[in-house]
Amino acid sequence: MSEYRAPTREMAFTLRHLAGFDEMVKACNFEDASPDLVAAVLEEAAKFAGQALAPLNSSGDQTGVHLTADHRVHTPEGFRQAYRQYVEGGWAGLQFDAELGGQALPFSLAIPVQEMMHAANMAWGLCPLLSQGAVEALSDNASDSLKQLLLPKMISGEWTGTMNLTEPQAGSDLANIRTQARPEGDHYRITGQKIFITWGEHDMAENIVHLVLARLPDAPPGVKGISLFAVPKFIPDAEGNSGERNDCHALSLEHKMGIHASPTCVMSYGENGGALGYLVGEENRGLACMFTMMNNARLTVGLQGVAVSERALQMARDYVHERVQGIAPGDSAPSPIVRHPDVRRMVMTMKALTEAARGLAYSGCVAVDYARHAQLDDERRACYQRRADLLTPLVKGWCTEIAQEVTSLAVQCHGGMGYIEESGVAQLYRDARILPIYEGTNGIQALDLIGRKTIRDEGQAVQELIAEMRATAQSARGCDALDTARVDAFEAAIDQLDTALQQILGSSANAQFAGAVAFNYLMLSATLTAGWLLLKGAVLEAEDSLEPEGHARCVMAHFYIDHILPRCTGYLASIRAGEDSIMALSDDAL
Amino acid sequence: MSEYRAPTREMAFTLRHLAGFDEMVKACNFEDASPDLVAAVLEEAAKFAGQALAPLNSSGDQTGVHLTADHRVHTPEGFRQAYRQYVEGGWAGLQFDAELGGQALPFSLAIPVQEMMHAANMAWGLCPLLSQGAVEALSDNASDSLKQLLLPKMISGEWTGTMNLTEPQAGSDLANIRTQARPEGDHYRITGQKIFITWGEHDMAENIVHLVLARLPDAPPGVKGISLFAVPKFIPDAEGNSGERNDCHALSLEHKMGIHASPTCVMSYGENGGALGYLVGEENRGLACMFTMMNNARLTVGLQGVAVSERALQMARDYVHERVQGIAPGDSAPSPIVRHPDVRRMVMTMKALTEAARGLAYSGCVAVDYARHAQLDDERRACYQRRADLLTPLVKGWCTEIAQEVTSLAVQCHGGMGYIEESGVAQLYRDARILPIYEGTNGIQALDLIGRKTIRDEGQAVQELIAEMRATAQSARGCDALDTARVDAFEAAIDQLDTALQQILGSSANAQFAGAVAFNYLMLSATLTAGWLLLKGAVLEAEDSLEPEGHARCVMAHFYIDHILPRCTGYLASIRAGEDSIMALSDDAL
Repeated sequence: MSEYRAPTREMAFTLRHLAGFDEMVKACNFEDASPDLVAAVLEEAAKFAGQALAPLNSSGDQTGVHLTADHRVHTPEGFRQAYRQYVEGGWAGLQFDAELGGQALPFSLAIPVQEMMHAANMAWGLCPLLSQGAVEALSDNASDSLKQLLLPKMISGEWTGTMNLTEPQAGSDLANIRTQARPEGDHYRITGQKIFITWGEHDMAENIVHLVLARLPDAPPGVKGISLFAVPKFIPDAEGNSGERNDCHALSLEHKMGIHASPTCVMSYGENGGALGYLVGEENRGLACMFTMMNNARLTVGLQGVAVSERALQMARDYVHERVQGIAPGDSAPSPIVRHPDVRRMVMTMKALTEAARGLAYSGCVAVDYARHAQLDDERRACYQRRADLLTPLVKGWCTEIAQEVTSLAVQCHGGMGYIEESGVAQLYRDARILPIYEGTNGIQALDLIGRKTIRDEGQAVQELIAEMRATAQSARGCDALDTARVDAFEAAIDQLDTALQQILGSSANAQFAGAVAFNYLMLSATLTAGWLLLKGAVLEAEDSLEPEGHARCVMAHFYIDHILPRCTGYLASIRAGEDSIMALSDDAL
Repeated sequence: MSEYRAPTREMAFTLRHLAGFDEMVKACNFEDASPDLVAAVLEEAAKFAGQALAPLNSSGDQTGVHLTADHRVHTPEGFRQAYRQYVEGGWAGLQFDAELGGQALPFSLAIPVQEMMHAANMAWGLCPLLSQGAVEALSDNASDSLKQLLLPKMISGEWTGTMNLTEPQAGSDLANIRTQARPEGDHYRITGQKIFITWGEHDMAENIVHLVLARLPDAPPGVKGISLFAVPKFIPDAEGNSGERNDCHALSLEHKMGIHASPTCVMSYGENGGALGYLVGEENRGLACMFTMMNNARLTVGLQGVAVSERALQMARDYVHERVQGIAPGDSAPSPIVRHPDVRRMVMTMKALTEAARGLAYSGCVAVDYARHAQLDDERRACYQRRADLLTPLVKGWCTEIAQEVTSLAVQCHGGMGYIEESGVAQLYRDARILPIYEGTNGIQALDLIGRKTIRDEGQAVQELIAEMRATAQSARGCDALDTARVDAFEAAIDQLDTALQQILGSSANAQFAGAVAFNYLMLSATLTAGWLLLKGAVLEAEDSLEPEGHARCVMAHFYIDHILPRCTGYLASIRAGEDSIMALSDDAL
């Protein structure tokens, strides 16, 4: 299996020039986040990911995690050591509050760092991913005293965090949550079972803070009666150290198709009278608090899609350069298969999708930084918030869908070897399959996009995006290195999004229509937006000769417009057809 | 996990009315193959598949196969017993020569039977699949005495067969084969190693006949110097019984992503002086002999795609009817998720793709029967041969591609449960991933389609198909139950195929162009052809009220035209763009 080499140069270009990091840093007064610092952080992170995490990926998959009778979860060999390095390196607190021990750098600077960790070892990377979400939920919602109690050790990484939403009867629909919380003095007692709890129990950190959705005795039914609680595995003492063991534990681990090294736990709370929990935010406002966490987790799950795609691309690229088979057109002796046009089509597709998805994911995260920190007037801040809100389902949905395609193409590039586990690429394919499911299935993302992010604001966020895309197309027309016919095709795709938007806004009262077209609308808008970012890079390259050798970005933009963007026509046709034939059969006739 | 229920009614309809089985039976004088016999065979096969094979699928995946130090391969519990039932039921010889013990029924009648076996247990089904290919290669190419020696026990199923092509350096390119054969009296001695040999060693049958590609000492280099040999595990004695152990054995088994119960062997020949082999066909004509086998194996691998899709569809359908989550548009209480439009979009997509793929696969197999057996003039027989040749890469390529999509959608319909192995759907997803790879990768299928099946006959076969599709569209215009605008859209897609064909024929001298567009051309032509078969069914339903309830076939055709067929526009755009941006980057810049 090939090594993981973090594409630090591409990451820095994407972050700074496509996602607009440099401008954001100015607008938000992140004085420390200079280009030199960005480069230094990425180089250090690349070493950590490549040297400490990547070598554990395959062995972790093979060993998996084990639950012993004492409710302990044992991680694969090397995982604890790697986690210690992560904590010692200060990676856990990159983007968090300096007063609580963080480094107060932009969230979006932590993103390429996290991409590397997921690319090197997605199963391991899920532990920091969930912890980060828990820190965010607490930072935004917890009382000062609760923050002081929990956050310093979570931000240092000494303690990890989890997210406890799902119950057997409450998956996509959290209204059905049954876990109970009853008040007891200044805290609560939690009782119930949660499933699919990622890193719910493990041996890498001394304590785990579970964020748990539960209902108070007098809570109204449905989602308006859900509160959020912090339930530490060990109850912190007055000095903030891990104290008494709390009444919660892992009951069992799931046997999954992939991410074998990530423990997915059934968690039991309160078998002995109730687990001690602290209320986070207000009573019955738990879902809102959890959404802070979920929104950013959605962006970082999308980022996992980018990461696993990059890793798959690297493996495929290595293989197709090495493997000699047949004689390619124009060659006179057996060729490395990269020279066969159909193989190159696959590699180019992987590369274009991965780079475009990285642009999309990083852009979403830069928009979050703007919305949180920019010293701007309310209107402009609201605009960035709309952009972050709009991009979140696109990043989660599309970057995880393309991860299926890219990892599958990587298997295919390997031929028969791709199906053999030793090649390593099979693991990526299995690992990636969770991505369209967790943190809100992509169907849920699509409904979020069409409902909250499109119909509710009457298309404003999408129109703002369309205006920016048109401006880039205009710039592209001035570039000799960019082909006018392709710019025309790109503008035609913008028109397609506009057409879809108008039809959706015109049918907004028809919930069946919205539900039926939501997924294709997500695919259309994200395919276009991600392609726009490639074109933006091509324009920069063409205008400024940023990277003079060979106009590679112009080629990638041309390729994307030629071979990926035409999918938008199909998505639009499907949207136009609406719900009619989707809903025409009776339930029983399906 | 849900049971497998063979859709015998849908299978019979597809075979008889979409693939043209009834007409073929007349043209080929298959007097026995009456509609009643078809129904009876399917019912019996459904019992065998559902009762004997399906219950072993999940346990077989978990146990896998094991090689012991004595070179024996042990299959999972129950596999031997199921295989005995298969032999005793006479299933192995359905389509083979009555004089050698077969039942002399059409090949295409064996196809729904095999679909059931693969749907119930794809790993098990691979053993008969390979055996059938070996019987075909021997029937068409072996000397009478060799046939008498090997075929009776292979046709009864007592002995199985394998296909030994691949070596580490010779995958898609068989020119590199190094396995040696040297003449010795009336037989040969074979020495070399083969990899990826499916069911190369096992305990289900008393003997295994390996068909092995090898080179004679004086053979010309490349594919013109390859000969085919039959190498039995036990050398048959004069009475045709298994005799002395031959000098060949399994060295190791691969650890694969799926089909764990199917042993994929590294086979060693001649470690002790050379394995005894019999020449099949002429010297140096091995590749041609193997192609008989490969062509039909390609059809049956496509059929595996249909089978695993059907199984995935059934699991998803069961789950979405049971699982209650959220309130669907128009409902007032929590709904089974099948009522959510986005879930229904997924189920309808699975159903449409699976039924269309079945039509395509069965049609390919009926064309094979025509080409082999029809009592027709040479011109009409040649026409059926062209059709069989054309459909083979479409069936192998497209039915295995849609199997990826359908099994993935089935996982997605299950939400988090889909990623858990106990659900069973994860296994289907893993099992299915081999399909686009083995029996010639789908890239190889695409090159076969564009080269041998399109450019070489100057588009004749495709034009014949287009003419038939136009005739169906014409009939569809006369049906009240079919929407004219959708028929227009179908005809527009035919025009798209025609456009692609003209561009391909016009660029036939440009091998880079052909290679670059081949895959999209395969997807375009197959998406259209498969959809045509759904439309054909809809026309029959509308004209004859064959199945009066609810015009389900018209709905499926409408759905396909609305939501699947628009993909063709994207494929055509990609073909039109050609090789330019695919090949523009240097090898190193990829």
